[in-house]
Amino acid sequence: MENTKKIIFASDHAGLNLKRVLMDYFRPNYEIIDVGTKETSSCDYPIYAKNLCIKVLELEALGILICGTGIGMSIAANRYKGIRAALCLNEYMAEKARQHNNANVLCLGERVVGVDLAKSIAQTFLTTPFEGERHLRRIELIENL
Amino acid sequence: MENTKKIIFASDHAGLNLKRVLMDYFRPNYEIIDVGTKETSSCDYPIYAKNLCIKVLELEALGILICGTGIGMSIAANRYKGIRAALCLNEYMAEKARQHNNANVLCLGERVVGVDLAKSIAQTFLTTPFEGERHLRRIELIENL
Repeated sequence: MENTKKIIFASDHAGLNLKRVLMDYFRPNYEIIDVGTKETSSCDYPIYAKNLCIKVLELEALGILICGTGIGMSIAANRYKGIRAALCLNEYMAEKARQHNNANVLCLGERVVGVDLAKSIAQTFLTTPFEGERHLRRIELIENL
Repeated sequence: MENTKKIIFASDHAGLNLKRVLMDYFRPNYEIIDVGTKETSSCDYPIYAKNLCIKVLELEALGILICGTGIGMSIAANRYKGIRAALCLNEYMAEKARQHNNANVLCLGERVVGVDLAKSIAQTFLTTPFEGERHLRRIELIENL
């Protein structure tokens, strides 16, 4: 069971603005942990994906990773055993990511989703529980790949 | 450089119909290799993600992986070193997945994208080249995570 009081955030330069918006939006109800980048200069997303994955596994919390499209972050984060990173463009995907995939990291693309949609996707992701059952068997298969 | 004459396809039961449509659509111009599932009965997506990743790496070809949302497939496929699997919901994402992430697997969600949109996303993915440069450094970082 995840620690539902904390959210770990990370982004590269292309996701920095959306990350700041979401951190402000969720700050009243969650402890926010930002593992970078904190600067607008061009940087390499795999470094921040790594920072976030380590922290998500350590704290057993949910994380939100943002880059331009969300694709690079989702590739990098899913390299980590125990991380299930879901790139979502709508609330339906965020719901299924939690219900079926027990995703612990939400990936978003600042260049692809608008600010209010991103808030709604993240809200759905943070509040939807895992369904278990047949989906648990599939997640165990993933972790043994 | 990928083998651009072959496409490897895989899906679970929830992606089977869209897989069949796309295989028929691309068959006139590509060699199509289907690594399953070939049945409508419920099955576990990580098994088909594994089949596809092994074949994509062996043939140095591009692959297309389909499940209900594309999320489970993208989590499972990105467990493999050398696989960069991009979940795309539009042509912009497919273009960036190739240009920036040098993705070799496209993930699609049959329950999320319509048939004609899926054809257009896949067409963009199959015909857009990698841009290299700074993106190459980032991909090397991913492979060393």
